[in-house]
Amino acid sequence: MAKTQIEAQPGVPQIVITREFDAPRDLLFRAFTDPELVAQWLGPRQYETIIDRYELRDGGRWRFLHRGADGAEEGFHGVFHGEPSPAGIVRTFEWEGLPGHVLMETATFEDRGGKTLLRTNSVFQSLADRDGMIESGMEHGVDDSMERLEAVVARLAAPVG
Amino acid sequence: MAKTQIEAQPGVPQIVITREFDAPRDLLFRAFTDPELVAQWLGPRQYETIIDRYELRDGGRWRFLHRGADGAEEGFHGVFHGEPSPAGIVRTFEWEGLPGHVLMETATFEDRGGKTLLRTNSVFQSLADRDGMIESGMEHGVDDSMERLEAVVARLAAPVG
Repeated sequence: MAKTQIEAQPGVPQIVITREFDAPRDLLFRAFTDPELVAQWLGPRQYETIIDRYELRDGGRWRFLHRGADGAEEGFHGVFHGEPSPAGIVRTFEWEGLPGHVLMETATFEDRGGKTLLRTNSVFQSLADRDGMIESGMEHGVDDSMERLEAVVARLAAPVG
Repeated sequence: MAKTQIEAQPGVPQIVITREFDAPRDLLFRAFTDPELVAQWLGPRQYETIIDRYELRDGGRWRFLHRGADGAEEGFHGVFHGEPSPAGIVRTFEWEGLPGHVLMETATFEDRGGKTLLRTNSVFQSLADRDGMIESGMEHGVDDSMERLEAVVARLAAPVG
């Protein structure tokens, strides 16, 4: 049942996540670029995701918060490199709990005849940063995100009626 | 005489460049952030460097051109992540000759009692991109840049009169 692949090679400051979705590429892109949709799938289920800023353009800034049941918040922010398009979205990413540690993420959406292969490629400033991300329990968050994203695109794909 | 260190480990999509300068940290930072100064040192000597845009702020865009003696131009652009400061400048970087291939560079300026250790850490989307950068003759350009940067900061540090 592990449809999400997380690849993290020893000694390489990079994480590659892939998953195929039974939905066309434009719906995946919409789920990544409409802030109301992003808030519905991004992150572990136990947090509420609040999109504070989402300037979808070259140099645009984005920021979101994860809010726990106890009200505690974690912030994340970065900037978009280039105009986001279905061919790819490149952005920087910094967790505000560890300022000065930044990664660059490239999300691509490959058309597979009506299905779509999502690939996110994250590169880190150091191996320690990459390993810290894995040890933070990232896998759980990624699994939750991908399952919720699947539900979002299934809903977008469903005939309205 | 090889004062510039270029570190590129096998199998790791990263290049780290370090060099110590006999100048205080604020002068190095100025040489990296004043576009008129940047144009005096960035790139191989055989090109004229033209700063097209240099928006030094979180989300700001930058772009420069290298113009050869024959008039041919190469463009490079990206965005700044976070507010640039002497503690560090993080930016994305894309050569317009190979669109879609982006790296993230972090420049830091470490005070060493009046001298400054410059460190630039570039992480690439893939090992192929990293190796392509090295094969493009990057080392020659880095050596030229660092020597010219040394001349720029020496001039800034010299007493006026």
